[in-house]
Amino acid sequence: MIAKTPTPPYYAVIFTSIRTNVQEGYEVTADTMVEMAQQQDGFLGMESARDGIGITVSYWKDLESIRKWKANSDHLTAQKMGREKWYEGYTTRIALVEREYRFDR
Amino acid sequence: MIAKTPTPPYYAVIFTSIRTNVQEGYEVTADTMVEMAQQQDGFLGMESARDGIGITVSYWKDLESIRKWKANSDHLTAQKMGREKWYEGYTTRIALVEREYRFDR
Repeated sequence: MIAKTPTPPYYAVIFTSIRTNVQEGYEVTADTMVEMAQQQDGFLGMESARDGIGITVSYWKDLESIRKWKANSDHLTAQKMGREKWYEGYTTRIALVEREYRFDR
Repeated sequence: MIAKTPTPPYYAVIFTSIRTNVQEGYEVTADTMVEMAQQQDGFLGMESARDGIGITVSYWKDLESIRKWKANSDHLTAQKMGREKWYEGYTTRIALVEREYRFDR
């Protein structure tokens, strides 16, 4: 699903990752993090796809809501597990969405 | 591949799409557009994944380089074909990357 975000400005967190072949605990943790993110103040939507590379873009009202989610204790634990087991590498980019164009058939 | 982008600030174009089932011309055009984008002034990198939803994030030096690529005549033709044939819907977001964090094993 394409996220139905509000009129800009708002923030995007672009999380691009390469997985290891370790599966243990990954799916359940990833699913839990998605559910938890959706419940955070300032969460606006999320889009995710993986084929080889994984790209997850989450949308947020402001930097403060991103900072709070980054510092959430369950999320910190998941981030640590990610570095120890699940990811060969990742990049997180914090970006201010200035414009948005939408096409629907 | 995770794009090796420079120290922020720089721009991201987040293109999220849902395909129709029309294949005709799609692959060759998409490949050509990737090759052409890589040759544009100000192009910094690109990441792409599709499973159900497609997410392509391209990175650019500034708004001017994005504007020029958007107005490129071959790209305009491809955009028109995309709306006519290949996409059920898409959203394009223009975002200023303010911060970047990288993890490598």
